[in-house]
Amino acid sequence: MAVLGLGLMGRALVGAFLRAGHPTTVWNRTPGKAAELTDAGARPAATPEEAVAAAELVVVCVSDHTAVRELLDRLDAADRDLLAGRVLVNLTSGTAAQARENAARVAATGGGYLDGAIFAVPPAIGTPEAVVVYAGAPADFERHAPALRALAADATTHLGEDHGLAALHDSAVLGLMWSILNGFLHGAALLGAAGLDATAYAPLAARTTVTVAGWLADQAGQVDAGTYPAGDATLETHIATMDHLVEESAALGVSTELPDLIRALAGRALAAGQGGAGYAVLVEQFRRPAPAAGHGAGE
Amino acid sequence: MAVLGLGLMGRALVGAFLRAGHPTTVWNRTPGKAAELTDAGARPAATPEEAVAAAELVVVCVSDHTAVRELLDRLDAADRDLLAGRVLVNLTSGTAAQARENAARVAATGGGYLDGAIFAVPPAIGTPEAVVVYAGAPADFERHAPALRALAADATTHLGEDHGLAALHDSAVLGLMWSILNGFLHGAALLGAAGLDATAYAPLAARTTVTVAGWLADQAGQVDAGTYPAGDATLETHIATMDHLVEESAALGVSTELPDLIRALAGRALAAGQGGAGYAVLVEQFRRPAPAAGHGAGE
Ligand SMILES: NC(=O)c1ccc[n+]([C@@H]2O[C@H](COP(=O)([O-])OP(=O)(O)OC[C@H]3O[C@@H](n4cnc5c(N)ncnc54)[C@H](OP(=O)(O)O)[C@@H]3O)[C@@H](O)[C@H]2O)c1
Ligand SMILES: NC(=O)c1ccc[n+]([C@@H]2O[C@H](COP(=O)([O-])OP(=O)(O)OC[C@H]3O[C@@H](n4cnc5c(N)ncnc54)[C@H](OP(=O)(O)O)[C@@H]3O)[C@@H](O)[C@H]2O)c1
Repeated sequence: MAVLGLGLMGRALVGAFLRAGHPTTVWNRTPGKAAELTDAGARPAATPEEAVAAAELVVVCVSDHTAVRELLDRLDAADRDLLAGRVLVNLTSGTAAQARENAARVAATGGGYLDGAIFAVPPAIGTPEAVVVYAGAPADFERHAPALRALAADATTHLGEDHGLAALHDSAVLGLMWSILNGFLHGAALLGAAGLDATAYAPLAARTTVTVAGWLADQAGQVDAGTYPAGDATLETHIATMDHLVEESAALGVSTELPDLIRALAGRALAAGQGGAGYAVLVEQFRRPAPAAGHGAGE
Repeated sequence: MAVLGLGLMGRALVGAFLRAGHPTTVWNRTPGKAAELTDAGARPAATPEEAVAAAELVVVCVSDHTAVRELLDRLDAADRDLLAGRVLVNLTSGTAAQARENAARVAATGGGYLDGAIFAVPPAIGTPEAVVVYAGAPADFERHAPALRALAADATTHLGEDHGLAALHDSAVLGLMWSILNGFLHGAALLGAAGLDATAYAPLAARTTVTVAGWLADQAGQVDAGTYPAGDATLETHIATMDHLVEESAALGVSTELPDLIRALAGRALAAGQGGAGYAVLVEQFRRPAPAAGHGAGE
């Protein structure tokens, strides 16, 4: 295969392919980044078109969508038919719309396109920790899945035909990550305002986070079924304690933005008659655009 | 000891005290809830004042602050000096201000007051899963900690002298819990709009959540130190992908409220010249009230 882009992540990808025994041709815009990789058995190419010509599976991992566009322009300028019969796997982060744009461009040259998202830091590539998801034609995925498993042996997943799905998955996971960090940092600010250390709070916060992780499969089942039985607590019970969080934050001069949003979403569900349901009923609030300002709390 | 309030949680508390061998007197407003407990060895009291008179440690666990107030009124009416020399431990959920109000009332009668927060569902009380934190005079805590450990053997913690600290801790932990659930449900809504099941997403979401839990101790250390070295990613890198989350949500007609808040907080830090710092720098945004509307993103 060929790997275009030898940044932190690109080099990790090449390392994993080589360790799995795949002949790998590599190229980077700025020369000099391939030395260690060629020592480990990679074949350096002088141009991206030379790298592509050497492989059926072409992995691209550059900074961003602009870099992908420039690379596709360059390949196109070198040889319009270069990608025909090959599959380009793009592991550069981007949006669903960008993935679909790339897919259409590559399809126009007769090539296949898979868009991927990597859930791992470079040192985790090729270890059991890594997760990589792909979107695009199932046939393209099946053809190259054996090689792609070198990056994430147990967690190489095909999400579906829509090329945008990998980028969407990436956004969802990052949104969850930021939500957790913000919830923690808001709590640390609140306790800090009352003189407690974040370090003293961290073990309980981590324990809570792991506990809630264990609830997600059940929450997901409720989301998919569209029924939200209240288990330990109804939304109404949650709301009573949400009011405490808003009050405490305001009393200590800490930002109330996060508590206000938590409370407003639950308030809208309550106003919709869902106060007796379990927490997962809030997915219905996330499914639609926010109501116009001034009707935030809905009560 | 005495336990006042034999709801779901009160009954679990009594069970744990009895299993640990503590003679326990119990009372509930509505009669008939003590039967199983008296079979297990609890002594029923006909009135709350009778229960209090039987013990040096009095645990209260009723619905909410209004119920605590009514109970204190009733004890006061029966005998102004009833609580003198005893310690009342309130495990009812409430705010920091409510805890301080209770503490002042009990102090005026010559009694001690500890405010507690329970991080456990009733069946977990007395198991290694349970966490219970307390706030109030250290001497009151030390005197009764051996008995209170029956509820949470390994995780019975004194937070400090300010009676509000347990309630604040409760709010912080619940805020984290709602943040995680909201992050997950927003992602489920986003992927659902593109045809993906929440059930298929849940394992990756749970794995991500557990991974992020492992970062909190480090984030806390940065918060306490007031220095935020960028490890794997700077805030600026995060912002580029936050924009993707906002865009994807808008494109799919999903609520952008949560992504907008995530982005606005980071945008304010960027505007403050902190784009090169690590994520924990956002604690500084949470520490102050939100800026006036119209300056949300700060750029
Ligand atoms: N690092 C991670 O933890 C991680 C995790 C998940 C996903 N990702 C994603 O993986 C991608 C690469 O990340 P990275 O960490 O490897 O970044 P990086 O270390 O900054 O490397 C960027 C690479 O892109 C190349 N590049 C930039 N513009 C180009 C252009 N116009 N034409 C050709 N090549 C160009 C650079 O080549 P030069 O050497 O010539 O500048 C370099 O090889 C990003 O989309 C990132 O979001 C990274
Ligand atoms: N359950 C949990 O998972 C959990 C977890 C952490 C914290 N907590 C907290 O623990 C507290 C109790 O919860 P719970 O689950 O036990 O609730 P519950 O099952 O609804 O029981 C409420 C109890 O409060 C009593 N009560 C209500 N108003 C009263 C009044 N004016 N005077 C005297 N007693 C009164 C009720 O007595 P009657 O029988 O006469 O109505 C009942 O014993 C709440 O503050 C809750 O937030 C609960």
